[in-house]
Amino acid sequence: MKPIWIKHASQLVTMEPELKGPRIGNAMSELGIIEDGSVWMESGKVIRAGTTRELELEFEDREQEAEVVDGAGKLVTPGLVDPHTHVVFGGTREAEFERRLEGASYMEIMNAGGGIHATSRMTREASEEALFEQAYTRLDSFLKHGVTTLEGKSGYGLNLETELKQLRVMKKLNSVHPIDLISTFMGAHAVPNEYKGQEEAYVSLLIDTMIPMVAKDDLARFNDVFCEKNVFTPNQSERILEAGKRFGLIPKIHADEIEPFGGAELAAKVGAISAEHLLKASDEGIRAMAKKGTIACLLPATALYLREEAANARKMIDQGTAVAISTDCNPGSSPTTSMPLVMNLACILMRMTPAEALCAATVNAAYAIGEGEQAGKIEEGKKADLVMWDVPSYQMLQYAFGVNHVQAVWKKGVRVV
Amino acid sequence: MKPIWIKHASQLVTMEPELKGPRIGNAMSELGIIEDGSVWMESGKVIRAGTTRELELEFEDREQEAEVVDGAGKLVTPGLVDPHTHVVFGGTREAEFERRLEGASYMEIMNAGGGIHATSRMTREASEEALFEQAYTRLDSFLKHGVTTLEGKSGYGLNLETELKQLRVMKKLNSVHPIDLISTFMGAHAVPNEYKGQEEAYVSLLIDTMIPMVAKDDLARFNDVFCEKNVFTPNQSERILEAGKRFGLIPKIHADEIEPFGGAELAAKVGAISAEHLLKASDEGIRAMAKKGTIACLLPATALYLREEAANARKMIDQGTAVAISTDCNPGSSPTTSMPLVMNLACILMRMTPAEALCAATVNAAYAIGEGEQAGKIEEGKKADLVMWDVPSYQMLQYAFGVNHVQAVWKKGVRVV
Ligand SMILES: [Zn+2]
Ligand SMILES: [Zn+2]
Repeated sequence: MKPIWIKHASQLVTMEPELKGPRIGNAMSELGIIEDGSVWMESGKVIRAGTTRELELEFEDREQEAEVVDGAGKLVTPGLVDPHTHVVFGGTREAEFERRLEGASYMEIMNAGGGIHATSRMTREASEEALFEQAYTRLDSFLKHGVTTLEGKSGYGLNLETELKQLRVMKKLNSVHPIDLISTFMGAHAVPNEYKGQEEAYVSLLIDTMIPMVAKDDLARFNDVFCEKNVFTPNQSERILEAGKRFGLIPKIHADEIEPFGGAELAAKVGAISAEHLLKASDEGIRAMAKKGTIACLLPATALYLREEAANARKMIDQGTAVAISTDCNPGSSPTTSMPLVMNLACILMRMTPAEALCAATVNAAYAIGEGEQAGKIEEGKKADLVMWDVPSYQMLQYAFGVNHVQAVWKKGVRVV
Repeated sequence: MKPIWIKHASQLVTMEPELKGPRIGNAMSELGIIEDGSVWMESGKVIRAGTTRELELEFEDREQEAEVVDGAGKLVTPGLVDPHTHVVFGGTREAEFERRLEGASYMEIMNAGGGIHATSRMTREASEEALFEQAYTRLDSFLKHGVTTLEGKSGYGLNLETELKQLRVMKKLNSVHPIDLISTFMGAHAVPNEYKGQEEAYVSLLIDTMIPMVAKDDLARFNDVFCEKNVFTPNQSERILEAGKRFGLIPKIHADEIEPFGGAELAAKVGAISAEHLLKASDEGIRAMAKKGTIACLLPATALYLREEAANARKMIDQGTAVAISTDCNPGSSPTTSMPLVMNLACILMRMTPAEALCAATVNAAYAIGEGEQAGKIEEGKKADLVMWDVPSYQMLQYAFGVNHVQAVWKKGVRVV
């Protein structure tokens, strides 16, 4: 395969690869911008990133053997990382969306078999092949929107068989789709209907059966819990996450989305790599997360879709919490695959700066899923995951909103969009 | 040129072309859906629209001469209509967007030469060719997002020379770009800096010089005013709109965006074809508009970008006002070209149903710019402006948000996307 040489990018954003760890405070704005930037990719890796002048000195003799890409007037960034999706699911819920807008109440939707239990039913009924096909198409859409690494969660099975089915689908997707897919077990996404009133029995099933099985088959890196009123209590969540840790699964936690419930505090306590949503997180919880280094994974598209007040990203950044952002792609509260829109919304709804939003969708998102040393930056010797955007600057990318400006995507040095 | 035959569309949405006039109340939900739909286009026109079975009976013998397009699993709708844009302008303001998010106040931005006066300066300085090139690219983006008819306003010139320059650019765009562009004169977009403190002198310039000149050169169909506190009073707005009427320019009005100011009432009084924004319109104003048949043109992307509460579309629809929606594409408060996103936001932020949002972006949008008999429907004998979407239903189009689902666009029967 020919080497690829991007020349004359208006802005090449490297994300300062020599900085290690998730970015906090002002470091979220250090994008490592190279004007008139140039990248040489070869054998799937970034060989050199610098100014076009620098690379011309080094690679002049090899220009003939490379495919040269003109970056004039274009922005080049690392491939985006989406650190929180529920990308594998059966069915869709557009009929429910319409009924809700026509005036049906939440209870009417639920009584008609809607909501998460509808998706759970459709996911249980779907064949492994059907789930794979649908999720593959969704991953293609993510790729077209600049995402090259993505986390996916189980959690619509809510029984052993279907949770494992979802995780196997993700493993297969990771092996055949260009996107790198990192798996999270989330059997604790809801209490399934058949365990209503016997929540503790379901917690036991998770701890005694599902978690050991997932770990044995090496099907997930993370273990996630929906810690919220009427779902899993902080105590149940803690036990589920600690059980995962004993089997090598790193904790994540859906925390404080609907009301302050101690989720952020628990995330710090169990040493979660990230806590998600955090719309109603307490000040103490945010401080505890900052102290412990737990990344805040914020989901402004979900807040928009549910017409909730988005999380207080400014307070988190000011208090030293590393912030990542994500689509939360799921069939109920965020049926979208657009990380560019999520970056726009991070600016519009959460008052993050254009630079912070890009950091949150690349390097911090990568650290939120344990990929900080492999993804989210343009780093010499590492995977060549790059996006070229049809705008001249990261400022324009965030300002000219609601449009997918992706022009080209390279995954491991191969042009895939 | 070969005829085009779309077959087997999962949903063909015709918008019930036999219904005349803007749609109000329940009629906004009458989409004229044909399942397994089929369209025969020839010589730029829709010749027949019906079920695939019906068209097979009629066109079987001519199949060989047509280009057949498989619509299986796809939604087909009329080309979208964007009834309110400021698409011709000089420069962009992404630096201002970043400074604002970094904490600069409105006054700091203004004192640094930002805001509408920055765009006015850049528009005055830009050559006619440069304005044309930049707007042409923007129209291409509209087309890729399914828009085949669009309104554009002057109003960044704020002097005779530049207002005419903007309108000439639009006339040229209309003649060379596939999109049909309908022009509006909006010299009353702001009071230019050089007339600060002499607002009445600027009103006189508009009435005595600019409006007659625009009309003489046949450069606009509509005359629009920004009726808002500290811009133009209702009295000034009325005089400007009445002056336009004497020269054949139909009134439009930017009304009640920032505070209740009598704009909706004035729209009804002068017989405006549409009133725009209406975030703070009074109940009496809305009722008066409904009675007079003035269309409410709502701009939810602007509300989102400015973090304002969107207009009360539900109340307007319930009171019998015809509602249209638009991008409001402009460099300050809505730098987007995505009508699909605007439809999504109409559902999410304004609780319009998926069907109402589609009606507001097609037939009602067309009536809001005097094109109701030429655009916004799929009607036999009329212009073949169609969009094929990579989703099976209009419900999915609105539900799976933030993504441009356009797969193909035909303008006057020619494939342009
Ligand atoms: Zn989630
Ligand atoms: Zn406007």
